[in-house]
Amino acid sequence: MTASTPVAFEDPTYREAVVDLLGAIAYGEISAFERLAEDAKLAPSLEDKLAIASMASAELGHVARLRERLEQLGADPFAAMAPFREPIDRFHEYTAPDDWYEGLIKAYVGDGMANDFYREIAAYLDADTRDLVVASLEDSGHSAFVVDRVRTAIAADPRLGGRLALWGRRLMGEALTQAQRVAADRDALSALLAGGVDRPGLDLAAIGRMFTRITERHTERMAELGLDS
Amino acid sequence: MTASTPVAFEDPTYREAVVDLLGAIAYGEISAFERLAEDAKLAPSLEDKLAIASMASAELGHVARLRERLEQLGADPFAAMAPFREPIDRFHEYTAPDDWYEGLIKAYVGDGMANDFYREIAAYLDADTRDLVVASLEDSGHSAFVVDRVRTAIAADPRLGGRLALWGRRLMGEALTQAQRVAADRDALSALLAGGVDRPGLDLAAIGRMFTRITERHTERMAELGLDS
Repeated sequence: MTASTPVAFEDPTYREAVVDLLGAIAYGEISAFERLAEDAKLAPSLEDKLAIASMASAELGHVARLRERLEQLGADPFAAMAPFREPIDRFHEYTAPDDWYEGLIKAYVGDGMANDFYREIAAYLDADTRDLVVASLEDSGHSAFVVDRVRTAIAADPRLGGRLALWGRRLMGEALTQAQRVAADRDALSALLAGGVDRPGLDLAAIGRMFTRITERHTERMAELGLDS
Repeated sequence: MTASTPVAFEDPTYREAVVDLLGAIAYGEISAFERLAEDAKLAPSLEDKLAIASMASAELGHVARLRERLEQLGADPFAAMAPFREPIDRFHEYTAPDDWYEGLIKAYVGDGMANDFYREIAAYLDADTRDLVVASLEDSGHSAFVVDRVRTAIAADPRLGGRLALWGRRLMGEALTQAQRVAADRDALSALLAGGVDRPGLDLAAIGRMFTRITERHTERMAELGLDS
């Protein structure tokens, strides 16, 4: 560990939780890159392909700093990512989009949910780690593109709206299933939310409120797309 | 056209050639992104996957400036890219790597060849366009990674060297075939090399020397990888 490592890291469980969190986010970004690059193949035009490929690149662009920070904490970045490969890969396997619009919704709503969740956790971190996490989740600035494409398509074919609303609910369900698996497997990460020496934690009611906030933001995003959630 | 457009653009054939060139490079980068993202799936480790995915992102990162410049020249960037989709897609179709190492060689040697070719053409451009082209071709800084991986693999299995040397020759052959098609189809681009009002051109002997230089650099790259060419 370097001199810039704050005092919170003297608690080995805290350090372990941060390594887990940064590993999960980093693998999430690599895997988002892969999935968006795959979705780019479904693009109906070269301009749309470029837009989705740029979203893929933006995700990958965050990995270098997460990797650097993991190394500063004395962790092997790839070992830190390893425990999250299975749940994240499984999420993507179970939510492989069947067409361009399902891919767009997933890019927008799926990443949005993940980002909300990590941002909630970030509130329980030391300032340096929090800043890094929040910077890693910065919106890639392509939301307007997704909203425009989805709303236009639904206007042209209202039945599409019903199908995509169902798809959004499925994304939410699969994300919660995998998040629950991670929480059950990674003690340090769960302990982070429960608090520790000198750090406030969440009781069950607070965890409930956190999930309510995440669900509400999901509903808002679906509404922006013109979809019921 | 903007006030910053140099006098060379008063020649409509010159402008057309520049639009062609920037369109070709931009589509080449988008398509390199797609191919590298695809090759990332073959990576034997997460670290290798991240390295090749980062090369993909670096390629895509150049597209925004090329697109901007095409718009400044009053061209539709996607219309400018369109004529190059078929030859570039065909090159990739005919040189789809069968394994991770063929993908690495293609990333290194294929992009190297394309960059050398564009750099040669850049010598015949106005300073602004030349700077933009050269910046678009900047090495993504991942060459050391490819050289290391390929040399290590050949040391462990010398037969691999023979197969990859053949592969390198095939890449060169397919690239020349497609470049020739483009030259035959795109008059303005070919005329650029032949010169024009106030601009010196190349005679056949000079074009011959240009191809000799490109071939020599290909041989050097193959040698760096530990391969005969």
